[in-house]
This record gives sequence, C-alpha cells and structure tokens, in this order.
Amino acid sequence: VGAPTSLKLELFQKTGSFKPRGALVRIAALDAAERARGVIAVSAGNHAQAVAWAATAAGVPSTIVTWETAPEIKLIAARAYGAETVRAGATPLEAFAAMQRMRTARQLVLVQPSDDEIGAAGAGTVGSEVFEDLPDAATVVVPVGGGGLILGVAAAARATGRRVRIIGVEPEGAPTLTRALAAGAPVALQSVSTIADGLSAPIAGELQVAALPSLVDDVVLVTDDMLRDAMRFLALRAKVVAEPAGAAAVAALLSGLVDVGHGPVVAIVTGGNVEPRLVAEAITAS
Amino acid sequence: VGAPTSLKLELFQKTGSFKPRGALVRIAALDAAERARGVIAVSAGNHAQAVAWAATAAGVPSTIVTWETAPEIKLIAARAYGAETVRAGATPLEAFAAMQRMRTARQLVLVQPSDDEIGAAGAGTVGSEVFEDLPDAATVVVPVGGGGLILGVAAAARATGRRVRIIGVEPEGAPTLTRALAAGAPVALQSVSTIADGLSAPIAGELQVAALPSLVDDVVLVTDDMLRDAMRFLALRAKVVAEPAGAAAVAALLSGLVDVGHGPVVAIVTGGNVEPRLVAEAITAS
Repeated sequence: VGAPTSLKLELFQKTGSFKPRGALVRIAALDAAERARGVIAVSAGNHAQAVAWAATAAGVPSTIVTWETAPEIKLIAARAYGAETVRAGATPLEAFAAMQRMRTARQLVLVQPSDDEIGAAGAGTVGSEVFEDLPDAATVVVPVGGGGLILGVAAAARATGRRVRIIGVEPEGAPTLTRALAAGAPVALQSVSTIADGLSAPIAGELQVAALPSLVDDVVLVTDDMLRDAMRFLALRAKVVAEPAGAAAVAALLSGLVDVGHGPVVAIVTGGNVEPRLVAEAITAS
Repeated sequence: VGAPTSLKLELFQKTGSFKPRGALVRIAALDAAERARGVIAVSAGNHAQAVAWAATAAGVPSTIVTWETAPEIKLIAARAYGAETVRAGATPLEAFAAMQRMRTARQLVLVQPSDDEIGAAGAGTVGSEVFEDLPDAATVVVPVGGGGLILGVAAAARATGRRVRIIGVEPEGAPTLTRALAAGAPVALQSVSTIADGLSAPIAGELQVAALPSLVDDVVLVTDDMLRDAMRFLALRAKVVAEPAGAAAVAALLSGLVDVGHGPVVAIVTGGNVEPRLVAEAITAS
C-alpha cells in the first residue's frame, strides 16, 4: 500500500457488520407507541440483520423487506434474530416501493441505513473509535453504499479538529454517490451490477448529497476483480473473512487508487457476511 | 457449545500463528558464537516461519528443514522471512534425521517447537494473556502437536493458583500425546494422517511426557471432518480463517467432546496459515 495501514474490523460486530451501531441508536429514539407498532427496513442484508437484532434486543417487532435476488443467507440470519422477512419486487427500487406501502398500512417506523441523522451518528461511532485508537490517522478509506457510514465517519473526523482525508469507495457497477455528487442531487440508478451486495443501494441519501461535498476528499471506484483480490488478501494474509463490500477499502488501497501520502491510513472493513461459494471462489482465484 | 466461550486468536500474531512466542524467547537466549553460526529447525510450517522471522529480526541466520510433502505455502513464507529452506526425506522422522546431520556439520543451534523449557515458557505467554483477559476462565482447550503450547499454558494456569481445567486436542490420525501418555514415554508414530499439518509432529517431547500427566485433565481426539466443520464455523460465524490445527479446539467443543461445565471456556485458535484450496473446501462443504 505504501504507508502504514490499519484495519478497522467491523466484521467482528454482533450480526457481522457495523450496521447495528446505527440501528441501535435509531431504535433507542422511538417513543412508546412507535415501539409497540414496530419498525421496518428494506435491505440487501447487513442492515436487515442489524435492525432485526437491535429491535429484538429492545423488545420491538421488526419487518425486513428485500428484493427477490437478495442473498438467502442474510434473510435466514434476520429471521433468526427475530424479524419477519418479506421478498417483494425484482429490484431494490421495487422493494423500496413495497416497503413504503407496508410501512403506511401498518404505521411502522422506517429504520434507514443512511439518509437519517440519528443513524449516521450511530455509524459515526466507527470513526470516533478510529480516532481514539489512532489519533494521528491521516487518511480513512470508507466503503460507500447509501453513504450513512461515510457521513458519520467524516463528521467524527471533523470533530477531531485535525485535517483528516476521507476517501469513499464505490463499486464501478453501483456508483451511487459518484453520480449524485456529479449531479448535485440523488440519482436513482436503473440497475446495479456488483458482487458487493452490501454496496448496492440504488440511490444516495438527500442528507449525504447535501453534506458530503464539503466533508469527503475523493470517491474512487473499484471493480469486482479488485474486490475479489482484496477478499483473498484479507483471508490469506490478515486471516479475516470479509464480504465484498467489506473488502472495498482494502481493494482501493491495494489497487493504488488512493494517494496515501506517508500515512497512517485506516481501511474500514465493514462486514463479513458472505455466501460461502463467493468467499471460496475469491480465495482460490489465481 | 453449552457455556460462554472465548477464542484466543493467535492467528493474528506475526507469521500467522503463536509460534514466534517460543522462537523469540529461545533466540534471545543465544550467546554471541551461537548467534553467528545460526539456528536450524525442522517443521511442517508455522514453527519454520516463526524461527525464520524471529532469527532474521535478531540478525541470526536460519535454516529450515522439511519433508518432501510439506505445504509449499509455508516454505515460501519462511524464505520471505529470510531463512534458507531444505526439503529432505519422505517423512517427518527422515527430515528430523537430516536436520540432525546438518546441525552437527554446521554447529547450528536447534530451535525446537516443543521439548524445550525456554520455548515452552515463550508459548506459555498465550496462557498468561488468557488469564489476564479472563481471570475466571474455568476450562482452556488447547491443540496439541508436539506439546509445547499445552505445557506452557498449563504452567500459566498453575501459576494462577486457581483450579483451571486444561484439555488437549489431537487429530485422530496423529495421536502423539495420547500414545505417549498411555505408554508413559514418547512413542514415535510410524505415520500420521490428518489435514492438520500443524499437529502432525511424529513424537511427543520427553519434557511434555514427564510434566503433562499432572497438568492436563484430558486429551480428546478429533477427526478431519470435525476440523473442517470447525474451520467453516470459524470462517462464516466468527469471520476468521483458521488452519485445521488452529480449529482443533473449536472442533472438540462443537463436537461435544469437552465437558464445559458452566464455563467460561477458552479455545485457543493457534494459527491461520492454510492452503487456499483447503479453506475453500471447508467453507463450501455442506
């Protein structure tokens, strides 16, 4: 990579990703009537598990809506954590529309993975911990799906009062934030194509698009091959199992896409929930 | 498992296993003439890398001897850490004999993975850390190859002044310690057959066989299938890549071979250096 680099291993969090940080904080803010009716979320996976786990821990019912091609392993986990799961629609946008109908009919509170200040504040505790553990971190590289994590981490960086470079990483096949920053407003992608299902949000949050231009230094794009290479590197050299989204920051660093200066650099490894076949293929690729 | 269980993740140590602990302490005890001539070791892998790395860090030349079927990935790593590597003999016992000839001819100091009080004291720091982190640990489950680690951990347990159960785990196909304890003396196995190359030592150390009967509560045997199941569990649930030897303690616990009582239980995950094919097969096995 060219500079001392640390990994923030969020794959060790309960449910296997950083997502419970936002969900816990959001659910803690519900009032009694909201708690009784329950929460709903639409997610490809890690957010689903996080909401399911956090809701059950708080004694709140939860419903998770996904599209038809979402990985089954993550739905199984969400049900195991106590959620009701529903598959609706062929695409993330169709699932989102179906979720909105259920939300309205049942008066549920939507727990969003991004585009929510409370949730982003929860996700931002990742950044607070990074700067507590490594006060001289000069560059932090953050995978970007909907943008909740990078917003929270960038806010935590700003709170240090030091100059910290914040670099976002998106898949080439799901450049949600890249498009939004170019357009100056969220752009709904008609389709996404990436092995990083955790970064396949179809649209960036309004909040992100408003706040991130002044907080983020660069957003770079990685290919599926770069993600697989990074998964293999993490498994065989760092001995951790990252999902494709979780390997995105490491992929950008290994591919030379980030100007690391003299470091120290921090790569946030956001999660480790991956279909066995996918990690096996990445590990054995030449 | 039936009781609260913690993993001691030695796969994150430099060189990917706990082995540098013993090698560093042993090499630090060399005199100037010994340092100049160098050290030699015979190893299937992790001890080789540990000796290579520790010797190079101390400015001491090292030679690593292995048998012909040892995994190439570990020899590559030993050379990258600065060692000369030699393949000699079809079996571990033949490689050991070849090492003794080289050792005598070149007046090298043998760095043993076990059967050495200084090395066992180094390995025992694993145990010291376990009891520092988890002072009420009631049972510690330890993979056994030559027995250096379990001796050190058992000594650390004794030093706590509390009653701690120490359980050893060997592969069915390499029951070195089991045979030695039954015979009351080290027994050279004519052949070993296990996917856990890290536990394929052909003979237990004299030191172990003398000391362990009063220090160890039980030694249990695991099959290759149990090791693969534990590797899969560790990869998909705990998000870490363990080699077969590293998964042995978890295999014994998941298979119900250990009476865990009310816990807390500690499983020592000794290393994570594994051929990519082997971990991919374990992860995708049904």
